[in-house]
Amino acid sequence: MLGIVLRPEIEELIQRRQFSELREALLELLPADIAELLADVPREDQAIIFRLLPTGVAADVFERMDARRQRRLLRGLGQEQVAAILNEMTPDDRTALLEDLPRPVAKQLLGVLSPEQYQIAATLLSYPRDSVGRRMTPEFAVARPGWTAVQTLEHVRKVARKPETVDVLFVTDESGRLRGDVRLRDVVLAEPSAPIAGLLNRQVTPLKTRDHQEIAVRLFQRSGRPALPVVDQQGALVGIVTADDLVDIVREESTEDIVKVGGTAMLGGPYLQVGLWHMVRRRAGWLCALFLGEMLTATAMAFYSEAIARAVVLALFIPLIISSGGNSGSQATTLIIRAMALQQLRLKDWFRVARRELLAGLLLGSTLGLIAFVRIALWPTRVHVYGEHYLIVAFTVGTSLVGVVMFGTLVGSLLPFILRKLGFDPAVASAPFVATLVDVTGLVIYFTVASVILHGILL
Amino acid sequence: MLGIVLRPEIEELIQRRQFSELREALLELLPADIAELLADVPREDQAIIFRLLPTGVAADVFERMDARRQRRLLRGLGQEQVAAILNEMTPDDRTALLEDLPRPVAKQLLGVLSPEQYQIAATLLSYPRDSVGRRMTPEFAVARPGWTAVQTLEHVRKVARKPETVDVLFVTDESGRLRGDVRLRDVVLAEPSAPIAGLLNRQVTPLKTRDHQEIAVRLFQRSGRPALPVVDQQGALVGIVTADDLVDIVREESTEDIVKVGGTAMLGGPYLQVGLWHMVRRRAGWLCALFLGEMLTATAMAFYSEAIARAVVLALFIPLIISSGGNSGSQATTLIIRAMALQQLRLKDWFRVARRELLAGLLLGSTLGLIAFVRIALWPTRVHVYGEHYLIVAFTVGTSLVGVVMFGTLVGSLLPFILRKLGFDPAVASAPFVATLVDVTGLVIYFTVASVILHGILL
Repeated sequence: MLGIVLRPEIEELIQRRQFSELREALLELLPADIAELLADVPREDQAIIFRLLPTGVAADVFERMDARRQRRLLRGLGQEQVAAILNEMTPDDRTALLEDLPRPVAKQLLGVLSPEQYQIAATLLSYPRDSVGRRMTPEFAVARPGWTAVQTLEHVRKVARKPETVDVLFVTDESGRLRGDVRLRDVVLAEPSAPIAGLLNRQVTPLKTRDHQEIAVRLFQRSGRPALPVVDQQGALVGIVTADDLVDIVREESTEDIVKVGGTAMLGGPYLQVGLWHMVRRRAGWLCALFLGEMLTATAMAFYSEAIARAVVLALFIPLIISSGGNSGSQATTLIIRAMALQQLRLKDWFRVARRELLAGLLLGSTLGLIAFVRIALWPTRVHVYGEHYLIVAFTVGTSLVGVVMFGTLVGSLLPFILRKLGFDPAVASAPFVATLVDVTGLVIYFTVASVILHGILL
Repeated sequence: MLGIVLRPEIEELIQRRQFSELREALLELLPADIAELLADVPREDQAIIFRLLPTGVAADVFERMDARRQRRLLRGLGQEQVAAILNEMTPDDRTALLEDLPRPVAKQLLGVLSPEQYQIAATLLSYPRDSVGRRMTPEFAVARPGWTAVQTLEHVRKVARKPETVDVLFVTDESGRLRGDVRLRDVVLAEPSAPIAGLLNRQVTPLKTRDHQEIAVRLFQRSGRPALPVVDQQGALVGIVTADDLVDIVREESTEDIVKVGGTAMLGGPYLQVGLWHMVRRRAGWLCALFLGEMLTATAMAFYSEAIARAVVLALFIPLIISSGGNSGSQATTLIIRAMALQQLRLKDWFRVARRELLAGLLLGSTLGLIAFVRIALWPTRVHVYGEHYLIVAFTVGTSLVGVVMFGTLVGSLLPFILRKLGFDPAVASAPFVATLVDVTGLVIYFTVASVILHGILL
């Protein structure tokens, strides 16, 4: 790629303060490359380089920097240039910047916007977080049903510098209500005098400003169109969401699901750039909650301390038993959560899932139980380590595993359904969460099975 | 959406066998809606409905069905219609269908293709799985640098029915080498006599056929263009990847990461449609591997059975201690894996990460240790449950937790680096995997701390 070849050259120009050559060289690069280059340059040079760029390019470069670098750079620039960049940024990227800033800073930045851009920014920020309204841009190209193809192309020529895309034109009536869309290429290919009404694709399902962004992704996949229209509560077209926003949304939502499965909260920034305190606080919440839940195991164990005192051999398998329940539960819950996210499962499927997972749990539990039985029964030092009743101990552990894995699988698969029914995000059912939930029950199952099988022998 | 309103009406038409009305009604719908409708219709009716559709629409509908339904439907159709649909499908979607079929079936289907389409399909299938070559379509619109805008538009008019997109035209020289791209809208907006060479965007980084699909996603995000060119080893343009493919790729890669974090393999199909045996086999592998690893805990515990026999109170906290190590490790590993996937961390950052995580582990471990100390020291029945030395027991558990959490955090954060260094996918470091790895060490830390602190008191 260009950036790699040019980098040493550009670095030299920066050091030598040859600004006009530097400007020339930078304008050869993609905005994304300039943004990457800026990331590696000392902070005091960043503002210098940035000031060399024409406002339009500067705004493009700025949009491609990550949030933390954006904020840092803003502090290094004069108010005038900040104003120029913010006014020039595409509204959806600007929303993304402003929504992550502390309120007073965001307010201050809103203050430098032109009245027109202020209006736009304030409106977009008024929509809920993760809503389509936050992600849309209010700059799009419209056409009217009565226009001819040639009239439409003329109109596109006039407005083409502003909107994020003119690959799709949105057709509205006089009152601003959406009637359909038409692809630029169809207008190009049509007879010059053909009316737009005849080229119209009416099968357009508009998004609503307050829809969750995930709905935009689904609709995009269903419709296969490069830009989706967004309407307000009155049905008037107020913005569009484009394909590149959707890739960002999918990334973000997936990250959210992944870190939840791992039992933590989103850090809200790149790993190395988030403050240590901030990160620890984000993680401590879940960790403490899980810890408090896990404390129930200490309470449960207290009930069995007498049994352990009589048969210490039972204690040896406690970690094995409870981790098996946790692991099988994590598997089940992960698969179910993902299937839900991909729309493969609905609430009403819970019974089919439960039946299926009970069976899967039986098979998986029997497998693990058999392995454990064989391992204990054939261990070279079995009599020394597990005592003379090692066969019965092996049987106890094996049987408990079947029960624990079945229970873990069942709980892990149903938990996402319960959470969803109660109005929570099913992805909260992380692997550690399920493990914690299953641990206490695993102990109860183990010691109950043991007290039945070993009654009169060891207990 | 349309589908919901029309569904009862359409179902009636199917039942009454009013095929011409049915055909009319279906053509009002989006292909995605027809695909959804077909999913709910009895199998024998699916083929009937499908035969009503014009081949072009049928291919569109077929592309939007999931893999399992596609295969089932193919079996219900005559060879002629199968051939028509396969020849009409966009090449990239056809590749996705064929790559998941058993080899003999795929071969048979390849046999019904026209020589031209056979050539295309066979070429695409020759690229490695998850490579850009598998995802690209070889149908795109080209222009030559010497053409004028008006010549180019004429060319587009001629070819526009075939390529997946003409929103971007790719400019090649006589030998087929890529020179750059130009957006259709820029051609539309240009003077009719302007040469394409002047409108050319030369800052195009082409993908290579053997690049991993994830590279396409990154390049898409960097460049912000709606279609990316793909070149072969000689630099000749051989295909394009479009934005809608990219959303699919992001989804697929995220699913892979999510199920790995949850400690299982991809099911290779929607949850309820995958066979039970198939699913159990997919899950059993990891579960058994984890189980075998976890068996080390039983071995480790055997070393401490004497200590447990003397101080049963120690056994009570085993689940609490090991789960805390596992949970903190899962958190760390999840955050690191995701940061790696999002390109926020490189191999050389391992030391910074280790330092950071050790500190985070100290803070998190101290928090949990303090909670445990307070809980044990202030428990109403403390003397009865934990014995007269309950304060020293509380201190032992609290101190062990600091060590276990620090160790868990460190292992969890470094494991993805080690896996990557060794050439494995870091996402293999699932929450259950880390937990298993940390469990044995957790026990060793706990009993070592106990033997030091409780020496001469309980042990």
